[in-house]
Amino acid sequence: MNFIENTRTRIKPVSLELLQQAQTRLDNKTKPLGSLGRLEEFARRIVAISGNQNPDISKKVVFTFAGDHGVTEEGVSLFPREVTPQMVLNFLSGGAGINVLARHVGAEVRVVDVGVDYDFAGTVGLIQKKVARGTNNFAKGPAMTRAEMIAALSVGIELADQCRTEGVGVVGTGEMGIGNTTPSSAIIAAISGKSVAEVTHRGTGIGDEALYNKVRVIEQGLTLNKPDPNDPLDVLMKVGGFEIAAIAGLVLGCAANSIPVVIDGFISSAGALIATELHPNVRDYIFAAHTSVEIGHRFMLERMKVEPILDLNLRLGEGTGAALAITIIEAGVKILTEMATFEQAGVAKG
Amino acid sequence: MNFIENTRTRIKPVSLELLQQAQTRLDNKTKPLGSLGRLEEFARRIVAISGNQNPDISKKVVFTFAGDHGVTEEGVSLFPREVTPQMVLNFLSGGAGINVLARHVGAEVRVVDVGVDYDFAGTVGLIQKKVARGTNNFAKGPAMTRAEMIAALSVGIELADQCRTEGVGVVGTGEMGIGNTTPSSAIIAAISGKSVAEVTHRGTGIGDEALYNKVRVIEQGLTLNKPDPNDPLDVLMKVGGFEIAAIAGLVLGCAANSIPVVIDGFISSAGALIATELHPNVRDYIFAAHTSVEIGHRFMLERMKVEPILDLNLRLGEGTGAALAITIIEAGVKILTEMATFEQAGVAKG
Repeated sequence: MNFIENTRTRIKPVSLELLQQAQTRLDNKTKPLGSLGRLEEFARRIVAISGNQNPDISKKVVFTFAGDHGVTEEGVSLFPREVTPQMVLNFLSGGAGINVLARHVGAEVRVVDVGVDYDFAGTVGLIQKKVARGTNNFAKGPAMTRAEMIAALSVGIELADQCRTEGVGVVGTGEMGIGNTTPSSAIIAAISGKSVAEVTHRGTGIGDEALYNKVRVIEQGLTLNKPDPNDPLDVLMKVGGFEIAAIAGLVLGCAANSIPVVIDGFISSAGALIATELHPNVRDYIFAAHTSVEIGHRFMLERMKVEPILDLNLRLGEGTGAALAITIIEAGVKILTEMATFEQAGVAKG
Repeated sequence: MNFIENTRTRIKPVSLELLQQAQTRLDNKTKPLGSLGRLEEFARRIVAISGNQNPDISKKVVFTFAGDHGVTEEGVSLFPREVTPQMVLNFLSGGAGINVLARHVGAEVRVVDVGVDYDFAGTVGLIQKKVARGTNNFAKGPAMTRAEMIAALSVGIELADQCRTEGVGVVGTGEMGIGNTTPSSAIIAAISGKSVAEVTHRGTGIGDEALYNKVRVIEQGLTLNKPDPNDPLDVLMKVGGFEIAAIAGLVLGCAANSIPVVIDGFISSAGALIATELHPNVRDYIFAAHTSVEIGHRFMLERMKVEPILDLNLRLGEGTGAALAITIIEAGVKILTEMATFEQAGVAKG
């Protein structure tokens, strides 16, 4: 717990002076004032986060954390549980959606087993950080022990610390875990006080009856475990997941290390939400990649006070939305660092 | 006029069978059905447009057409008219917004003088297709002659034909022309019947008084010239611009040549709107890059029945939004061509 608390205390607000300096520079580029809209916002925020007036975020890493969920025994997902390890192997051989999109934008994918119910011994290319072979069924008791929750969070923090050492310019979050929209809905319901029905959706594509069951299962889990809405780690431990905890740690660690972090969709936002609830300045370091089809997502975005970048009806996860958003953010950074000024180009000002 | 009519008659509806075949293939990729949302839409549309089951749109070209506008003498813009040629030179030396974003997404920028009030003789790298040194002031008479309108349209068609020969996979539209939001507002007002005030905005950033004047100037131009809303070429000739006409020709030509074309913002959409009014199947070939800050833009998108891809508060033009949207579309294509199927990856179906 000391490690997490130490990380938390390293988080500082970003420099408003750097934000302003970057905007002043943008205002001298050959374009009408403010005409590149959110690209300008991304550029000035990356300057303020990194503390670098000429940031270079070409070294881009997407972390795809995998974990299984005890709650799948309640029939909350359309896909069988063995799909989690199968997809991990798909990530490692480069055939999944995240691999295609990360290659497209020049990002590296790092796949992390933080709690898959499968023995990956000897599997090459996987970052092996398994805390346990899946969480417990939160409809019957806490999803994890306090020690497990801390271990999974710490995995994410350590990976962020390592990114700092390596000079990674921007990090994206992603996940894989059959059943993991269920803990994500539980987390936003617990923290926001919204009803479970308001924040629970079809995940990979369940029908009406299964959706009704999913809502009932989450309600049961919240009633039984009574997570404390004012204690994000209690919520995470009782109704979260290992990959969600690792994402929370990664986001916290990125904020502590002054690394911009791009949050993928619904499940990633559940992790990011734990981090922003742990420290209010975390939100200065995050970018919301997109608006998920999952109905609970907008409550997470509202709570974190972040504006999504893309709206493409995505609901795959893995980090796919984050990969696409990262290239838009990088475009904004290049506007700052590569565009000519009015003076350089000999263009008259308005 | 025969050239334009011949091009028009070459435009065919896209194949619904190819659309369906592409979606069936997408449905076998390792992801929940439909979970990549609009990326899947982009992929199947590119298949249907190109007629290629395995399209490759890595050869990407953005055309930035430049032209001047007689109506600037009415004080409709914040920037002086000489900024048009200054920005053309900025494009050619690689320092403008479009250069930065096109480089970022791996697209080539082709700069075309179709009507700038400047002598570019000897300028290297510019595609010189000048029809005249700016349009006439449409507040006092037609913006161009019928011959000029046809010449400017033909420039765009010829460039599209050349793209077909070169094997260009996707084309983006862009423009530069001080004052060109004014003819764009005039075009959508003339075609849609909306009031000028509803479709006229601040362009590069004019204040309230100048906006009031801009509305008055456009109203005067429409009253004087009486463009026929059922004759898009009459509208283009009387209240359009040379770069807008060239974009209309480019879009028409791309549709005739089965090349997907990504429409940038407000001014590009004015050109695309002329093309879609000329032939209803043109809309099958276009992608709307983004939602512009200009208030008239949404009426153009509604009229063309197209859904924008990005919403980043852009209002620069040049093709900047098109460049960003192109890389998102290309990502969708790669989902189709690069992702593993359930069978290939050994992943269980839901």
